[in-house]
Order: sequence, then C-alpha cells, then structure tokens
Amino acid sequence: MAGMAVYSLCAADGLRHYSPHVWKVILALKHKGLDFDLRPVSFAEISQIAGGGFSSVPVLDDHGRLEGDSFGIALHLEQAYSGNRLFPHDGQKALARMIEHFCDTVLNPLLSVIVVQQMHDMMPPADQEHFRAVRRKRFDAEIEEIAMRSAGEAGRFPQKLAPVRAVLEGQRWIAGDTPAFADHILFGSLQWHRVCTGASLLPAEDPVEQWFQRCAGHYGIALPTPDLMPSA
Amino acid sequence: MAGMAVYSLCAADGLRHYSPHVWKVILALKHKGLDFDLRPVSFAEISQIAGGGFSSVPVLDDHGRLEGDSFGIALHLEQAYSGNRLFPHDGQKALARMIEHFCDTVLNPLLSVIVVQQMHDMMPPADQEHFRAVRRKRFDAEIEEIAMRSAGEAGRFPQKLAPVRAVLEGQRWIAGDTPAFADHILFGSLQWHRVCTGASLLPAEDPVEQWFQRCAGHYGIALPTPDLMPSA
Repeated sequence: MAGMAVYSLCAADGLRHYSPHVWKVILALKHKGLDFDLRPVSFAEISQIAGGGFSSVPVLDDHGRLEGDSFGIALHLEQAYSGNRLFPHDGQKALARMIEHFCDTVLNPLLSVIVVQQMHDMMPPADQEHFRAVRRKRFDAEIEEIAMRSAGEAGRFPQKLAPVRAVLEGQRWIAGDTPAFADHILFGSLQWHRVCTGASLLPAEDPVEQWFQRCAGHYGIALPTPDLMPSA
Repeated sequence: MAGMAVYSLCAADGLRHYSPHVWKVILALKHKGLDFDLRPVSFAEISQIAGGGFSSVPVLDDHGRLEGDSFGIALHLEQAYSGNRLFPHDGQKALARMIEHFCDTVLNPLLSVIVVQQMHDMMPPADQEHFRAVRRKRFDAEIEEIAMRSAGEAGRFPQKLAPVRAVLEGQRWIAGDTPAFADHILFGSLQWHRVCTGASLLPAEDPVEQWFQRCAGHYGIALPTPDLMPSA
C-alpha cells in the first residue's frame, strides 16, 4: 500500500475512468508533479476501501493516509506537497468552491442525463445493476427512459456554460494566467462526458472547448475519440 | 454633470435605494475611495439617462463618461482609478463572475419573490404600475399572489447560501484576506432584501450574516432596521 493511489470507478474494460470527481484529483496530482496509480473499484468495493468509511470515489491513498472528497483531497495535497500551487492566489479557494457549486448544480445534473446510457453500457454487470437502481430512485425512471432526454439536454448544454465562457473570453485559464484547481474541477465535468462518448458537446471554436483541449494538452491527457470507444 | 454619479432606482421616500446591482457599484466606489452622488430615477426615467441607450440601472456618470452594467462599471473603475483593487489577484475576475452567476441564478430569483410586496409598496405610483406589469409578465401572476410564496421562499433561502458559507467558514472575505468586488456582488443581493424589509433572513451566528455585517461596517453603511421602515 506504499506510494500514492487513487481509487476510481471504471468501465468494464478497466481503462475508462469516468468519474468527474476522480478526474479533478488526477489533474491535481499531475499539477503537483506527483506519481500515482489508479485503482479501479466497483460500486460494491467502495465501501470496503481501507476497511470501510467511504461511500464515494475518489479516495486518495497517500502512503497509507486515506482522504475522501475531491476538494478535501486538493486541500490535503496543497498542504502536504510543495510544487505548483492548487490555490495560488488569495480568493482561489473561493473560486474553486464556486466552480464546484456551478458544476454540481448546473452542469452535472444535465450531464448525468446526457451520458446515462453510455455510463450504464460501459459498466461491469454488477455495477450496471447498482447504477440502474440508483438512477431509478433519483429519476423515478429506467435508464432507457432517462436516455430519451439525452439529445435535448445535450442541445441545452452549451448555453449553460455562459458564465465560464465569459471568464475564458478574457483569460487563458479559469484560475487566471496559469491553471489551478478551479480549472481541474471544470475539466472533470467535461472529461466525464468525453470519456463516456468520445465526442464533444461544444463546437471547436467555443472558448470553453479550446480551454478544454488546452487543459488536456497541458496535463498530457490523451482525449478519447469516437473510434476508440468500444461501444461506439 | 461634472463629478461622479450613479443613477439608481429608489423608493418613493427618495432614500431607500434597493437595486442589488446599484449596491455593487456603491461598494466598488467606496472601495476605491471615490466620492459620488446617487441620482434617483424612476423606471420611466432610465431610458432618458444621457439621452437614451440604457434600459437598467446602475448607470455610472464618470465626469461625463457613461457606463452601464455593474460588472462593466467595476472593470472601468479598476482601469481608470488606482487605490484599492477591485480584482486584486489572478483569478479574481473569474471569482467575481461566478459569484455574479450564483447571485443571478440562485439567490436573486428567490429574493425577487421574497421582497416583491415590499418593493412594490415602497415605489412611487408610476413605478408601481410598471413593476406590476413586468412581474405579471414574468410570473404570470399579480404581486399579491407572488407574495403568498414569500414566507416559503424565505425559509428555503439560508440553505441556498451553502457554497458561500463554505467559503466564509474558512476565510474572512469572499475575495480572501481583504474584501473585493466578489464581496460587493454578494453584498448587493443581501442588501436588496435588507433595504426592503429592515430585517435579515439569516440567524446572527450564520457566517454569512457575520460577513454581511462586517462588510457593512467596513464600508460604513448603516443597515436599515425594522423601526426605520416607513411601511413596517
């Protein structure tokens, strides 16, 4: 258990890590220049991580010290490791919190509808059963019924990015002249969709899409494309 | 027309300036240490400011140069005047934009219901007529019907502040160690309610309420109390 590892939900192929919250931590670790392993877990295995106590991913195992919650992990990394700052200026924690709130309340509810079928289809069978039950409870509908709203929500999605688009029209990164945890949070939401579909919801000329591509390039992340998607 | 002035919507008493967007600019001007006059206008008079072209307040008259839109005014003040910075660190424009989005989409829709009756009652008769028509169009209901939802929305309001409460539990100001335009924006929303009711929606021990009082104190703003309200 020595070293640094992130527990992560993953497709049945063992390759496609799809959780937006895990992606925030992947970028934060890369930002800090820290090496780490991704440890795929199923929904059922989350409750068994480190003997129990966690109900969601990411969970960070930092040389035996366990941390849950992506924002808490970022705060821990900032305190424990020098190198690039995740919150480099006064007000950056507040900015990151507001971006997190924006993603959790504006973007992620739409994305959870848009990619519901792809998420289901990529999961191992036991996860599919769990996922179906959780979605049935939240939406009072089956996966296939929720998925019928996917195209409509995808059409509404670009306009929801208006506040971050306004930011990115004036500066290169959400955090300012250099990327920081506020960028990682927004990247996590868009990368969730990208991993599930291999495609983008935004036109290439959208400043948000350009920032997303820039962010992937900056951290050396190869973006999935449709021809790489087993289920496409 | 020399000097600095802010056109502002005001109660019939000529004293109670209630627009949240005007309050952002009032604090920004105080933050910069600039003297200014408040020029009360009615809804009908907005379209006549400086010969036309504006459809909302605030409008800033900076020695003959006219600026509309509270965020645009803040950008202008930051560029034109030294003194305290409104965006003091990298990322602070993004933070202010996200706080603005949070206020516009989460807080202000609730507040517009909560104070609908008090706003109406404090206005000059011509403004009341305009206000009633606009509200009828937006809510498909009369002022008195909208006001029936006021207590319910007031009960839901404190929990809506969760993301800024999380910020203010860890730092003194939204912007960090010192206040900046991000603080002014949130103050504007809460001050709108305060001016209309003379009361607070939050318990005294709420970190957001403590920040609000701190903000008023920092900028020398005497908060209205119920016994100062003509209509209470």
